[in-house]
Amino acid sequence: MNNYKINLPEKDIPKNYLNIMYYLQKYLGKLPDPPLHPGTKQPAGPEDLAPIFPMELIKQEVSLDEFIPVPDEVYELYKQYRPSPLYRAYNLEKFLGTPAKIYYKYEGGNATGSHKLNTALTQAYYNKQAGVKKIYTETGAGQWGSALAIACNHFGLECEVFMVKTSYESKPYRKVIMNMFGAKVHASPSAETDFGRKVLTEHPDSSGSLGIAISEALEGVIKSGGTAKYALGSVLNHVLLHQTIIGLEAKKQLEIAGDYPDIIIGCCGGGSNFAGIAFPFLVDKLSGQKKDLEFIGVEPTSCPSLTKGEYKYDFGDTAQMTPLLKMYTLGADFMPSPIHAGGLRYHGMAPLVSFIYHEGLMKAVAYEQTEVFKVGVDFARVEGIIPAPESAHAIKAVVVEALKCKESGKSKTILFNLSGHGFLDLKGYEDYLSGKIN
Amino acid sequence: MNNYKINLPEKDIPKNYLNIMYYLQKYLGKLPDPPLHPGTKQPAGPEDLAPIFPMELIKQEVSLDEFIPVPDEVYELYKQYRPSPLYRAYNLEKFLGTPAKIYYKYEGGNATGSHKLNTALTQAYYNKQAGVKKIYTETGAGQWGSALAIACNHFGLECEVFMVKTSYESKPYRKVIMNMFGAKVHASPSAETDFGRKVLTEHPDSSGSLGIAISEALEGVIKSGGTAKYALGSVLNHVLLHQTIIGLEAKKQLEIAGDYPDIIIGCCGGGSNFAGIAFPFLVDKLSGQKKDLEFIGVEPTSCPSLTKGEYKYDFGDTAQMTPLLKMYTLGADFMPSPIHAGGLRYHGMAPLVSFIYHEGLMKAVAYEQTEVFKVGVDFARVEGIIPAPESAHAIKAVVVEALKCKESGKSKTILFNLSGHGFLDLKGYEDYLSGKIN
Repeated sequence: MNNYKINLPEKDIPKNYLNIMYYLQKYLGKLPDPPLHPGTKQPAGPEDLAPIFPMELIKQEVSLDEFIPVPDEVYELYKQYRPSPLYRAYNLEKFLGTPAKIYYKYEGGNATGSHKLNTALTQAYYNKQAGVKKIYTETGAGQWGSALAIACNHFGLECEVFMVKTSYESKPYRKVIMNMFGAKVHASPSAETDFGRKVLTEHPDSSGSLGIAISEALEGVIKSGGTAKYALGSVLNHVLLHQTIIGLEAKKQLEIAGDYPDIIIGCCGGGSNFAGIAFPFLVDKLSGQKKDLEFIGVEPTSCPSLTKGEYKYDFGDTAQMTPLLKMYTLGADFMPSPIHAGGLRYHGMAPLVSFIYHEGLMKAVAYEQTEVFKVGVDFARVEGIIPAPESAHAIKAVVVEALKCKESGKSKTILFNLSGHGFLDLKGYEDYLSGKIN
Repeated sequence: MNNYKINLPEKDIPKNYLNIMYYLQKYLGKLPDPPLHPGTKQPAGPEDLAPIFPMELIKQEVSLDEFIPVPDEVYELYKQYRPSPLYRAYNLEKFLGTPAKIYYKYEGGNATGSHKLNTALTQAYYNKQAGVKKIYTETGAGQWGSALAIACNHFGLECEVFMVKTSYESKPYRKVIMNMFGAKVHASPSAETDFGRKVLTEHPDSSGSLGIAISEALEGVIKSGGTAKYALGSVLNHVLLHQTIIGLEAKKQLEIAGDYPDIIIGCCGGGSNFAGIAFPFLVDKLSGQKKDLEFIGVEPTSCPSLTKGEYKYDFGDTAQMTPLLKMYTLGADFMPSPIHAGGLRYHGMAPLVSFIYHEGLMKAVAYEQTEVFKVGVDFARVEGIIPAPESAHAIKAVVVEALKCKESGKSKTILFNLSGHGFLDLKGYEDYLSGKIN
């Protein structure tokens, strides 16, 4: 029998991120359409992005190199919590009575409890290198904000976070974590920015959205007079790039276990945790080596960017300050309902994930909040880890696929990304358990 | 350079618990005084304990066998989260500028976030074997209650928990976890029991204590008419026994790292997490192989059982229903102030730890809550794990010892038990950060 937990030696932490752009170019011969300048509608050049990102990250955004090295200092920090464990979900398999083999990569074992730290450290590092003093950002459920706070604290950068109001209220302790690591946190829409005040005037009861919070963070950067930059926890190419460390490790761990997946599943908010687990395997599908390999992105029915959105150029934020991104979108002014999976409440989708979906290389499914919490509780009971509501979306799809195997009697190997734990999302579980969510 | 994280292969999870009683008998030639029947004041026999514990656990309570096997079914469950990682605290060492080498065993990586699951599974297993239908228990900060809830859920037992009121109010999400795993939870003192109602009548504002909560749980057992039993999360010999899995693993991991500790540190509430890390090493001190090995138990100044208590027979609970235990105690009616480290608010101390302290085999120190939170924040910032306030007591002592090394220029190897994470204790950190704790 295999081990429950498949550890990787520390020396096997990947030294490079994997750049899916290189492989898209190589095997498909095409790339996602580039971001456009919101004024000229021409492709946005590095100089257009320079006010908000350090140049090294802009270079990564457009790079066609196959591998991009993990900076040494970040590598050293990764060693504190990486390699993350890969678990074989024997108990879930038994509970479902499925012949499927289920593996999950668990990214919740660090101070911030999610995969977001992987990119936060790298982004903070390159900002520090570029002489930046302060980083503004937005956060949904707070995983990204906490991750950036800890990274900024390490590199001696100031950090100011606009947190979507519904999550600010339902996950109060996320704020405490950000404060613990020295960050300043506002509920968004806030009275701190012109745009926030405008939204509050028009919609005093606004529960906020990632789009609004991004606009507020960008306003902070613009008003800083060049000392501050912006950081994003998902969507952009360089963010997805940093998350490929998840899939790269998982691939090595599955090799140790003597296995290879048939289906790979991740939840999709902005797309980074899905991309993180999927892209290193997608290479094998692109190359033709694993033609039948399936990828499934999972989103909430209340914010169905992939399953119900349109593939077109749209703004990344509500105030329409960002470059235009070619992506599946529900519209930059879409206001998702205040579900507990705050990390999945984004109107758009990473251009890379959108492109891959458009090319038919992955599927997408959407589930209701209640059915997601139900499998979250089941998973906690049998596997002993309370999943974040975001990650529980992935679990729902895993259960569906595993039950298909049960019906057909055919075993498949399913890999999914358990992107974070739910210790700071217990209000959602409480509402579910007490029947307050219908 | 050594690894940050020292993993142990799954096959090296210990197959036996280590019974310190055997070694005390062998090397010291004496044992702690036995528990006394509260009525007759004669040593309590197995039959006196039979109404509240299953016989297998009573046998373990008095066993003089060197090793006691981990039941196969529990061993299988251990594989979900054990071996727990041993970390080398390179970043803490650097932060302190100490020549000391600091290692910590991290027990927070399971669904309940603390070491308590180690014994909860074993206790629930033996109760199930004995045909018990329901387990009553008390909990302080809620780590033990959550752990027993998950264990009872696994073995199909009902679980009812009396949670000390101050923690019930300051750690509301602990209750959600217990509910998630199917347990019923009351704030103690509660209106559910005669004793709870008595306390509420006399002290309507009582913030509760572990002593009161134990009395309420025992009353539940007595009134069950024989279908329910009781389980304790610390203090008793069999509970400490199950926790030795921590130290047994740590010993193997240090062997991998090529090291052996000079000082071993754990916080002391009832004594189980200290004993868990310490006893497997204490064997080497008892045998004369490691004469200079030091052990330090750390408690809060507001509940200083070891440092200010008296070594005598006392009740384990406030209503004086338990057998009399020979231990360091502040008196069964002692009411500790409502500090955030709810797991350390016990008036007494495990008879085994008390005995070892009395024999001069370990030291004890006490620290104020604010200095403990301060190092808790420092630790989170540099090591990337937010410690439970209980565990932060151990960290405080580690920092003191590491700074002694800095002063003397002499390197020592320090091992401590990071018994749990602080994701459910963030209100305490919030109060500390906002200056509400003085």
